[in-house]
Amino acid sequence: MQDKDWFTYSIPPPDQKSGVAALERQATLTKPAGSLGKLEDVAVHLAAMQGSIRPQSSPLGIAVFAGDHGVTKEGISAFPPEVTAQMVMNFLNGGAAISVLAKRVKAQLYIVNAGTTRQGGYPQPVIDRPVGYGTRNFLDESAMTMQETLTALALGRSVMDEYLSQCQIVIGGEMGIGNTTCASALAAALGIASVSDLAGPGTGLDEQGVSHKQSVIEKSLARIGNQSDPLQILAELGGYEVAALTGFYMRAAMLGIPIIVDGFISSMSALVSCKLNPDTRAWMLFSHASQEPGHAIVLQALKAEPLLSLGMRLGEGSGAAIAYDLVDAACELHNKMATFEDTGVSNRD
Amino acid sequence: MQDKDWFTYSIPPPDQKSGVAALERQATLTKPAGSLGKLEDVAVHLAAMQGSIRPQSSPLGIAVFAGDHGVTKEGISAFPPEVTAQMVMNFLNGGAAISVLAKRVKAQLYIVNAGTTRQGGYPQPVIDRPVGYGTRNFLDESAMTMQETLTALALGRSVMDEYLSQCQIVIGGEMGIGNTTCASALAAALGIASVSDLAGPGTGLDEQGVSHKQSVIEKSLARIGNQSDPLQILAELGGYEVAALTGFYMRAAMLGIPIIVDGFISSMSALVSCKLNPDTRAWMLFSHASQEPGHAIVLQALKAEPLLSLGMRLGEGSGAAIAYDLVDAACELHNKMATFEDTGVSNRD
Repeated sequence: MQDKDWFTYSIPPPDQKSGVAALERQATLTKPAGSLGKLEDVAVHLAAMQGSIRPQSSPLGIAVFAGDHGVTKEGISAFPPEVTAQMVMNFLNGGAAISVLAKRVKAQLYIVNAGTTRQGGYPQPVIDRPVGYGTRNFLDESAMTMQETLTALALGRSVMDEYLSQCQIVIGGEMGIGNTTCASALAAALGIASVSDLAGPGTGLDEQGVSHKQSVIEKSLARIGNQSDPLQILAELGGYEVAALTGFYMRAAMLGIPIIVDGFISSMSALVSCKLNPDTRAWMLFSHASQEPGHAIVLQALKAEPLLSLGMRLGEGSGAAIAYDLVDAACELHNKMATFEDTGVSNRD
Repeated sequence: MQDKDWFTYSIPPPDQKSGVAALERQATLTKPAGSLGKLEDVAVHLAAMQGSIRPQSSPLGIAVFAGDHGVTKEGISAFPPEVTAQMVMNFLNGGAAISVLAKRVKAQLYIVNAGTTRQGGYPQPVIDRPVGYGTRNFLDESAMTMQETLTALALGRSVMDEYLSQCQIVIGGEMGIGNTTCASALAAALGIASVSDLAGPGTGLDEQGVSHKQSVIEKSLARIGNQSDPLQILAELGGYEVAALTGFYMRAAMLGIPIIVDGFISSMSALVSCKLNPDTRAWMLFSHASQEPGHAIVLQALKAEPLLSLGMRLGEGSGAAIAYDLVDAACELHNKMATFEDTGVSNRD
């Protein structure tokens, strides 16, 4: 790879002029000023990102990245690791939450094997580009080599370039048994909060399970010692799907495509992307507050206020696909409502 | 009207058996148990209301009731009263928020003139059945006679019976300049909170305007003295559209049709309907927390937790039409996701 520092390239800011024009349009629509609340903010932000006074909500593209985690050997998940590969097949066959939601909102759905343990490949149309066959156990050693980390970041970029570059909005999702442990470890290593505040039940650990998970993360942090380079931290504790999603976000921002960020893991990828290239942040809308306790902390670190709080904690991009409805409605209202002038409805004095 | 106490008739409870069956189905779907959060609750509640393990989200019917308020003479709104009738025409012509949203979610939209000041009627397809031409100014006298109140309640019932009885889900909306004053007065008279906690900016009053509005409500409450009969309070301080919506809700519950309740005014109608017939409550889903300060108090009185909190304060049924997307998504996920058994995905131990 010749441009291994591609993700540090310049990311343009959204177009403030279009944002201001959209804000002015909002003031002309037949409703009390501001009465659509956050839906107005979404339309205006989207207008700035798309450089158009009339923001568009489709085509929508969703890419779900799957990867396995060596740290599952430590018994930190309520589900066995083979579920990652089984769920990839479930995505493919249309039975998973994200499959149902993607169809419902007429999104293009791309399933990416970023590095599950399954040998022998996946059927089409899975984008089958494993960086490895599960990461190493980060309790004992680096989860990924630096080369693997860069390859995973580049995978996210490639998926964006090859499949989603014509989308008006993109969503990234993830599937990986063990990845709330990975995300909690990353967040703690980046110094945003303590392990006990960050690590939670994931897919359904009981209190004892959470306590064990926290202890595994604490020991892993002790192993790596003080690290401040986010790329190094990503290699030590990350996952193939987490790194791929990080690259995916940075590339979307470079292409000027708005991103709807999903839950805990996705927000951790978003945070890492903002550490690697801070201008990524301006291209993100945040979908929901997950029930996983670490998510609120990561959102705070991103200065992000999500649209929804539904107690979801599924991943796969599912919360973002739900919030997409609000984004779509915001666009429709912004573009299709009549103005006071059109209708002769009296505005306030 | 022979059955003027129709609204006290028995309302059947939702079918708990179907609710339990739906809950059991949720546990078989390929996701960690509970990980779809409130979307699971919505699907289960809807299943109970519809008496089916597979709840349906369509057809959706929306009825928006419009009425004018004599109390606008006191200058309690940021917008002039003629806006009510102008907005009815805007609904008709497709330019209002609810018009755009109804079209977006493929709902049948019915516009009902319950009593605006406009003389000479409205074009088709407005359901043009004014109970009067604006209520009286409740600062000086009863807003409605008891006969008018009963007629308005019956109007809501008739609209439900004639137009929406085949719907799987219904939404009621309202339009009436001055009706946050009306709803705040009703809530205070019902004793759920003080006027100063309940009355807010409505469509956009400044601090001085809110203070004046509160004073008008205080004086009106002093005029009516201690009242405890909700029907009498509705007559004293209510509005044609507010009473029609109240009747609409009670009739939907009698027919066993789930209701998505909108914002402040709609929730006040919901509260009055629950005072008149408490079994109405079981048929309600709550869409959003409005920015109007009284709404949180009314929701609390209803023991209701809304799905959304987007800072909306538009009325018309708009917040409910936004929340409908979540209800629709909840149904799709519930009905279309694969089970662990179908897919061979490993469940937790």
